[in-house]
Amino acid sequence: MDALIVIDMLNRYEHEDAEPLMASVREALPAMARLVATAREAGALTIYVNDNYGDWAAGRAELTDQALAGPDPSLVAPVAPAEDVPFLVKARHSVFYETQLEYLLRHHGADRLVLVGQVTEQCILYSALDAYVRHFDVIVPREAVAHIHRDLADAALRMMATNMRAHVVDAGAVELAAER
Amino acid sequence: MDALIVIDMLNRYEHEDAEPLMASVREALPAMARLVATAREAGALTIYVNDNYGDWAAGRAELTDQALAGPDPSLVAPVAPAEDVPFLVKARHSVFYETQLEYLLRHHGADRLVLVGQVTEQCILYSALDAYVRHFDVIVPREAVAHIHRDLADAALRMMATNMRAHVVDAGAVELAAER
Amino acid sequence: MDALIVIDMLNRYEHEDAEPLMASVREALPAMARLVATAREAGALTIYVNDNYGDWAAGRAELTDQALAGPDPSLVAPVAPAEDVPFLVKARHSVFYETQLEYLLRHHGADRLVLVGQVTEQCILYSALDAYVRHFDVIVPREAVAHIHRDLADAALRMMATNMRAHVVDAGAVELAAER
Amino acid sequence: MDALIVIDMLNRYEHEDAEPLMASVREALPAMARLVATAREAGALTIYVNDNYGDWAAGRAELTDQALAGPDPSLVAPVAPAEDVPFLVKARHSVFYETQLEYLLRHHGADRLVLVGQVTEQCILYSALDAYVRHFDVIVPREAVAHIHRDLADAALRMMATNMRAHVVDAGAVELAAER
Repeated sequence: MDALIVIDMLNRYEHEDAEPLMASVREALPAMARLVATAREAGALTIYVNDNYGDWAAGRAELTDQALAGPDPSLVAPVAPAEDVPFLVKARHSVFYETQLEYLLRHHGADRLVLVGQVTEQCILYSALDAYVRHFDVIVPREAVAHIHRDLADAALRMMATNMRAHVVDAGAVELAAER
Repeated sequence: MDALIVIDMLNRYEHEDAEPLMASVREALPAMARLVATAREAGALTIYVNDNYGDWAAGRAELTDQALAGPDPSLVAPVAPAEDVPFLVKARHSVFYETQLEYLLRHHGADRLVLVGQVTEQCILYSALDAYVRHFDVIVPREAVAHIHRDLADAALRMMATNMRAHVVDAGAVELAAER
Repeated sequence: MDALIVIDMLNRYEHEDAEPLMASVREALPAMARLVATAREAGALTIYVNDNYGDWAAGRAELTDQALAGPDPSLVAPVAPAEDVPFLVKARHSVFYETQLEYLLRHHGADRLVLVGQVTEQCILYSALDAYVRHFDVIVPREAVAHIHRDLADAALRMMATNMRAHVVDAGAVELAAER
Repeated sequence: MDALIVIDMLNRYEHEDAEPLMASVREALPAMARLVATAREAGALTIYVNDNYGDWAAGRAELTDQALAGPDPSLVAPVAPAEDVPFLVKARHSVFYETQLEYLLRHHGADRLVLVGQVTEQCILYSALDAYVRHFDVIVPREAVAHIHRDLADAALRMMATNMRAHVVDAGAVELAAER
């Protein structure tokens, strides 16, 4: 089964290095939103995993509201999580670190993960690694991930393809299926 | 630093064995509620950890609403989580299994845990074990934990005291402090 | 696939409470040794998991030698690990806590675990719990586990059967198969 | 406290891409061996963590023997683990993934890790990440880590310095202390 993992898209973009990231997110948003819609239509599992920025009382509703109240809600709204979608809070960079993601994926029999979101050379890379270590197949649609440093992002994509057996592909080529 | 951990008190009590559990919860609620109030006044860390019953889109608000909509909201309301309190979702029995609890505790420097909630011979026992394995000090106020089977609960309390170095004490004797 | 897990049988029995444990081990050894032989003949996966007693330089050879050099090697020799058997070191009570056991089991497709060794009301109980939380089927052959406190061991076996869906059975009834 | 972590230096170099790795190891060995000697003299904690290449019956002795029996033992002998040094087996890339490393480090109060070994753009990078996520300070002596792809290794070192707050330093500048 396929699972679409949407990573860290609830962001107020007020941190250091937010400028180049926002530019990259703006480019990647249409491809991300298309994949979210595709997964929903196909009945594929979609899971949001998002940093809580140290606010341990916050869940989906609070993190979404906080992000939408930031300086540029147009970077958030197109991929804001639906109320009925699985949503996991993370405290650190990898989507797997001390979260229930692996449990949830195994429970659903999901073995192929499509990673979208930010930041290519950080949380996407780290999550691809942790998925590889756990023997999940990883697909990274290159137009649906956003970066801060272009050159590190390119190196990260090469690392994923070369050392983690990830499939770095065109977003348009990604198929998402409830069953395979 | 002390941390009060409130375990699985958001429950609709519609599962098997709910009857004896509800009776025990009814007895334990005053002591639990007192400890929640004490922790808040003392500025001690309080963390709710609750099963999501397989509803991965649910967080504090949803789980609280669902529990309050059950047949006996008076078993839920006295210890319903405040909006500003750290709240972690768990999928399985121990509060530590694939949750951020250990990370959160270490981040706050909490080394002494007071466990309240349900079920003494299940999640309380398992959580005490996982805390012991991780070298946290554990305190279990015996009037503030609720059981299904009295004899297994008694054995569980003995196991905690004998094999996990937990302090099983009168709820009135528990001190909670932001600093020690 | 079945896996036989042999827990903490490399022990010098010099700790507190060693006396009652040794008596119980003496009774349980024949059933344990029979299951180890059965698993080998059937080609079922056998995995030893043993505490290292804080000696982080020790592996199978050292821990076996140390145990055999203790006051009663006849409690160790009958189930000493063969040189070609998977052997995992653990630091704390549960066989799953920060070990590669889950990875190794999933890698081999093992989904049914037979737990033998010591101590029924401690590491056996905790390991059964951690197996249950991870959705493994658990079988505990009651004559092949050794205890310190008879009454706590009885309570532990009831907890495993009642709350962890473990099958507590006669050792003679246990079948071990490479394939099922 | 400081800890020197020696990663994956027990290797037969018979895998794909072994050639460029061996060349890089040959250059890095003197710096690695010096740090191992320095740590021993200073009484700093040294921990070997090594892949078991799927041989679950193998520990320090077996993995050392197997590596020394490979085509070029001169790449192994200078940093072969002493018999009294903590040695952890790993199954996958990161030294933290399902090993007792974090437990062992916290037990010793080690908060600053010096990473040496191979492969810079793989296990060193992944281990640095997992250390950062867990709030350990990370030092990477650039002459004491070996790579397969020079350009990916350079990118990995930049990622460690930029995104994981690692200190990438000259090996000669590394101080190792039992106490700080």
